[in-house]
Amino acid sequence: MNMRKVKVQQKILIANEEFASRNRTFLAERKIPCLNVISSPGSGKTTILAKTIQELKGKVKIGVIEGDIQTDIDAQRIRTTGAPAFQINTNGACHLSAAQISAAFHKLPVDSLDLIFIENVGNLVCPSTFDLGETAKIAVLSVPEGDDKPAKYPAIFARAAAVLINKIDLLALADFDIEKAKADILKLNKDVMIFLLSAKTGDGLQQWCAWLYEMVRNKTR
Amino acid sequence: MNMRKVKVQQKILIANEEFASRNRTFLAERKIPCLNVISSPGSGKTTILAKTIQELKGKVKIGVIEGDIQTDIDAQRIRTTGAPAFQINTNGACHLSAAQISAAFHKLPVDSLDLIFIENVGNLVCPSTFDLGETAKIAVLSVPEGDDKPAKYPAIFARAAAVLINKIDLLALADFDIEKAKADILKLNKDVMIFLLSAKTGDGLQQWCAWLYEMVRNKTR
Repeated sequence: MNMRKVKVQQKILIANEEFASRNRTFLAERKIPCLNVISSPGSGKTTILAKTIQELKGKVKIGVIEGDIQTDIDAQRIRTTGAPAFQINTNGACHLSAAQISAAFHKLPVDSLDLIFIENVGNLVCPSTFDLGETAKIAVLSVPEGDDKPAKYPAIFARAAAVLINKIDLLALADFDIEKAKADILKLNKDVMIFLLSAKTGDGLQQWCAWLYEMVRNKTR
Repeated sequence: MNMRKVKVQQKILIANEEFASRNRTFLAERKIPCLNVISSPGSGKTTILAKTIQELKGKVKIGVIEGDIQTDIDAQRIRTTGAPAFQINTNGACHLSAAQISAAFHKLPVDSLDLIFIENVGNLVCPSTFDLGETAKIAVLSVPEGDDKPAKYPAIFARAAAVLINKIDLLALADFDIEKAKADILKLNKDVMIFLLSAKTGDGLQQWCAWLYEMVRNKTR
């Protein structure tokens, strides 16, 4: 990487950090936790969010900012649960930026929400570098992806407050060693919460939702 | 995106294009096809390559350049098949560059090979923009990722010579509409070859390998 590239990347990250800092203030003033969900394409982020919204209905008012390169498929799926969702299309860019999130906050009924999810572009690499001003990052790893992904893509697993291991209904069919995956994640990040779940069957959803509920209660009381 | 960022990105792409052009000449002089395999993390690229090497053993001599952010797990897996493999670690970067490939060619016994695979970093977005000088790009989409991925991540599907839909052994368990996925891919790229396969069970491997064999014969005869 040449020096000019490094310098410009630093400037981009500094500009992003200014917006991230504003976002953090915006959220702190309103006492709304905001979780930045990061994973490979197809790990089940949108299904997890839709099921989480249903599970916490009547207890936690959730809004979602969806990031995708193209299409508004995901925002449409979230809206079928009754929750408000705003779709960002990055038109090629491989991650969301803090400036996009800053604008998106004003497209949601923020003052009526208890919790905001950001579903980042499906990409296990680039989104982990860009601070959006979120309260915490959540990593999703799905069983069919394989238990070697924490070792191969360490950045997001090192920075996440929680890792969701999704699609555990496929454990019998995949070569996925849960204990190996857990050990590799804890080696990168000893304080991380790890939840095993299947958004499809609902298995494990309650523990994850109980953790979210406690986060919201601690923030707002 | 600001103008300075655009200009520097253009320079990076131009520098990459110079190495890509050298790589293309290097391959053309030796009449070796080189395929750049791109997908999400965990779609099964390494398993496909290992099974392909076994299937074509004695007919096509294959070498592999492996790209990963960290670890040499994949190169080790390839070497168990008896094929030569060279591991590149990008140490954080989200895609391989043509300069890395140019150096890697000299780490393989290139003059004894009939076909080179490049397994790019697991990322459905960034690698599609960086020409490595390859003969063709191959996209892999696995069934558990969902049939909406071609619409949501169009760039690689538009640029691939072939799309492998892998893990078809999981079709009964996933909400994956093969006809929808095929139609979306063909909408982006009417000339693309689409192969359905399960690297795990071996289903569909023969058709893919027959296509590769024809490509090698056409290049070298």
